[in-house]
Amino acid sequence: MRGAVIHAPGDVRFESLDDPKILKPTDAVIRTAVTCVCGSDLWPWRGLDETTDPHPMGHEYVGFVEEVGSEVAGLRPGQFVVGSFATSDNTCANCRNGFQSNCLHREFMGTCQAEYIRIPNAQGTLVALDETPDEALWPSLLALSDVMGTGWWAADAAEVRPGSTAVVVGDGAVGLSGVIAAKEMGAERIIAMSRHESRQKLALAFGATDIVTERGEEGVARIKEMTGGIGADSVLECVGTSQAMSQALYSARPGGNVGFVGVPHDVAVDGEELFYSHVGLRGGPAPVRRYLPDLIDRVLTGRIDPGKVFDLTLPLAQVAEGYEAMDERRAIKALLKP
Amino acid sequence: MRGAVIHAPGDVRFESLDDPKILKPTDAVIRTAVTCVCGSDLWPWRGLDETTDPHPMGHEYVGFVEEVGSEVAGLRPGQFVVGSFATSDNTCANCRNGFQSNCLHREFMGTCQAEYIRIPNAQGTLVALDETPDEALWPSLLALSDVMGTGWWAADAAEVRPGSTAVVVGDGAVGLSGVIAAKEMGAERIIAMSRHESRQKLALAFGATDIVTERGEEGVARIKEMTGGIGADSVLECVGTSQAMSQALYSARPGGNVGFVGVPHDVAVDGEELFYSHVGLRGGPAPVRRYLPDLIDRVLTGRIDPGKVFDLTLPLAQVAEGYEAMDERRAIKALLKP
Repeated sequence: MRGAVIHAPGDVRFESLDDPKILKPTDAVIRTAVTCVCGSDLWPWRGLDETTDPHPMGHEYVGFVEEVGSEVAGLRPGQFVVGSFATSDNTCANCRNGFQSNCLHREFMGTCQAEYIRIPNAQGTLVALDETPDEALWPSLLALSDVMGTGWWAADAAEVRPGSTAVVVGDGAVGLSGVIAAKEMGAERIIAMSRHESRQKLALAFGATDIVTERGEEGVARIKEMTGGIGADSVLECVGTSQAMSQALYSARPGGNVGFVGVPHDVAVDGEELFYSHVGLRGGPAPVRRYLPDLIDRVLTGRIDPGKVFDLTLPLAQVAEGYEAMDERRAIKALLKP
Repeated sequence: MRGAVIHAPGDVRFESLDDPKILKPTDAVIRTAVTCVCGSDLWPWRGLDETTDPHPMGHEYVGFVEEVGSEVAGLRPGQFVVGSFATSDNTCANCRNGFQSNCLHREFMGTCQAEYIRIPNAQGTLVALDETPDEALWPSLLALSDVMGTGWWAADAAEVRPGSTAVVVGDGAVGLSGVIAAKEMGAERIIAMSRHESRQKLALAFGATDIVTERGEEGVARIKEMTGGIGADSVLECVGTSQAMSQALYSARPGGNVGFVGVPHDVAVDGEELFYSHVGLRGGPAPVRRYLPDLIDRVLTGRIDPGKVFDLTLPLAQVAEGYEAMDERRAIKALLKP
């Protein structure tokens, strides 16, 4: 089969690779329906995460079951499946507590920009649909495997409640998905912090009620001004930089909550500042598996359409162009078709 | 009148001071029934917080209303009142959200180790009892003004739930009060981290089910061992040092919560570690005023007896001996009688 391999910053190649095989009896192999490029894939592309040896890329996927290991129950070849970027047995103590992305047997996916994919912990990770969905829904179902699941987690961790005010820091695909989540959870006011016109439009289409273009201290001042001087009930931090984290913490009201889902790069939170802010802070890799049944239902019934974050569709063979377009912010998110 | 004044580390004197007066129409003046020394008073006593000019000390109090300002309704001379170490108007947006210790008109108390005390924001701060309580209850009511309210907040911020496992880091008066709170909130297992026999005994009397004497990494390993390898649902951080915060964060399970109430001294939380831990973190000065009506009821009905944290009673004139005894850990907490 063929798939994407990163060799160095800016150097992702579409190459021949060994076909994935069942390595453990708990594995499955799926044929990729669609996959995509994630904002976090840009860290090694930009050289901000080191690439020591060439390795496959990609952790988002929907596909068709091709083969299952001897210990995988409830899945059979031909089924259309959605899974998380973090695999889980869905039975351990952390999974039972709803934190499947901290499963004691967790393996992070990393080979999904390819024609076939091996899925560890298949039974606990994959959710099979009753029938193959219309191809028009594949992008939205694909979004659930990471960005929409992560946006949902950001809103959940930030404790968005009906009638509340939510601020979304970051206008990437996760931030935009966070707008959808805040809307679904009943936020009355959703303030998207964005200075890119196409992303502002999508944020408004997804349910944002206000756009704030200022950043840093000016952005915080604007949020305070809009929230009676005290700040927002919930802030979704969807970037992962130190500046974004500060912006998020200072935008939340005393007793408010920040859900942080951007993988932190050189972020340190000052204990005394957090103390006097009274802000609650929770983040981490999204427990996508917890949300999947509900989110699949919302997609299939047409309540949400997170697939709109894909504003570029490419053949899988042109995966490198997907990285480039996202790096140069010509695209929000690139969908890849095998 | 007379009261405590700190002049330098280790130098607290009982001196003649001006009688407090109504300075703003929202003030009250109370005659102190009992007051005490707080663990946080030891920071300047030990020279870890700087003392630039001599100033009065103390922020815990119960007393009798002596005089009220022209804008104070609902309080009259002679009433027995309990209040918080942080004053609040109890009407601003932060107060309405339940974070009275972040009131937009907040003033921290700091002159309470004295015979009379001026209380700013009196109407929103003080809770008057229907009648003067039996003197035997005064220590427990006094404890509500800070340590018991703070322990309650630690358990609340750590989201202690019926049937859950709670760990308490810190065996000072706040940590011991946290044990009471975790018990009242229905924790099934309460693990107190303590290596002092008298404090262990009190923790067990207050409802702790287990004592862990190990600290740091060994302490964390012990907690993991006791909690099926994953950590505790809730951890109450009642110290404020970097070591205590680490111990708390690593003792919580993925998806668990740390409530931190020790004023942080040189504490920085690494964003990436917090991210992968999935632990929720919330702290701050306790919103004591929110809890007061409920906690007063629990004391008056005999459900809780936090006054037991006072294991030394002194005349107010011997306030310096209270500091010394606590500094040398001869006493958990010193009660002062005018």
